[in-house]
Amino acid sequence: MSDLIFYTNPQSRGRTARFMLEELGVPYETVILGYDGDMKTPEYLAINLMGKVPTIRHGDRIVTEVAAICAYLADAFPEAGLAPAHDDRADYYRWLFFAAGPVESAIMDNYRKLEPDAEQQVMIGYGTFSRTIAALDVAVGKNTWIAGDRFSAADVYAGSQIDWPMKFGMLEPTPGLVAYVERLRARPAYIRAAEIDG
Amino acid sequence: MSDLIFYTNPQSRGRTARFMLEELGVPYETVILGYDGDMKTPEYLAINLMGKVPTIRHGDRIVTEVAAICAYLADAFPEAGLAPAHDDRADYYRWLFFAAGPVESAIMDNYRKLEPDAEQQVMIGYGTFSRTIAALDVAVGKNTWIAGDRFSAADVYAGSQIDWPMKFGMLEPTPGLVAYVERLRARPAYIRAAEIDG
Ligand SMILES: N[C@@H](CCC(=O)N[C@@H](CS)C(=O)NCC(=O)O)C(=O)O
Ligand SMILES: N[C@@H](CCC(=O)N[C@@H](CS)C(=O)NCC(=O)O)C(=O)O
Repeated sequence: MSDLIFYTNPQSRGRTARFMLEELGVPYETVILGYDGDMKTPEYLAINLMGKVPTIRHGDRIVTEVAAICAYLADAFPEAGLAPAHDDRADYYRWLFFAAGPVESAIMDNYRKLEPDAEQQVMIGYGTFSRTIAALDVAVGKNTWIAGDRFSAADVYAGSQIDWPMKFGMLEPTPGLVAYVERLRARPAYIRAAEIDG
Repeated sequence: MSDLIFYTNPQSRGRTARFMLEELGVPYETVILGYDGDMKTPEYLAINLMGKVPTIRHGDRIVTEVAAICAYLADAFPEAGLAPAHDDRADYYRWLFFAAGPVESAIMDNYRKLEPDAEQQVMIGYGTFSRTIAALDVAVGKNTWIAGDRFSAADVYAGSQIDWPMKFGMLEPTPGLVAYVERLRARPAYIRAAEIDG
């Protein structure tokens, strides 16, 4: 039994965590949970009170939230080289949290056909959908990867926050976003993860 | 001139970044931006395309997003002891990202009087407001601080994500949340930050 356990459903945000796990190249065990009750059992709620996937258990540690799973694994398995050095994490954290906060909210509002009015835009962290996507577009166009010239866990997460909505027609492709996502899709770990969950 | 510059407005989420800066105990320079155009000048948009505060500039690095600012500063100033060791960041990242994603979305929906229906709850990361707050309540009740017995940048950020909505009546106080926030409010850095921005 591996000390790294991955709770997921193949049709979920767990696919992003799978991509990250495949980038690590370490063994892990997968537990598939269905949408019809498995995620709301007392046993599972004890590790993830939200009753959602994905979750990872690493020894006696539990991590929920896809972005946190990516950041945690990058630090816990430094051999994989998926996190920048401590003193070089400005872009890394900036885009991880931008993808987890504003991008996620913008996409979910857009999915519900909600548009913050001018007053709400001041208070709501993402302001407007178009400004949020424009900021992402600039961010991915600066270097090969979002935090510089080296691929990192920030690409796994922020990249997936572009890749998935684009696949579902929830995000208008721009040449910059498409080029970036193409680089992401060419990663061997991306391809393996897609095969496993596919 | 300090190499750490803080762009903020005293009536904004910048207060959380100020709290973090005060925890560090290093000198920094503050640039106040008003809501009437200052944040949308070409100069400021060049560093924060969202045209929002806060932003920090540290040497030639730029960090936006309050949560990213907290995580970045904790790593960039390790002497302050505000980030756990690399191999001990499960709870740290879990609650930082939980506060930046689900908690932020739940509060913003609640502010707009929006409640995801049963179908939307499966897709929307926070599910329901009550489940999100219940998860937070459990998280802050386990130890003195959210990532264990040591105060960390995760408390600055996740704690503020409880403290502010509670002050504005957007979050129902529970004994556990109140006790946790009281500990936060007693931090000398919290008090100093409140005095500066007050
Ligand atoms: N903020 C969470 C979102 C997790 C989430 O909403 N997962 C969905 C699938 S993509 C889920 O488990 N839904 C089942 C349910 O809510 O009952 C994360 O980033 O991990
Ligand atoms: N997700 C951002 C949110 C920043 C934000 O929305 N700031 C507001 C003040 S609290 C702002 O600058 N509003 C001005 C505007 O949108 O024009 C963060 O966490 O830093």
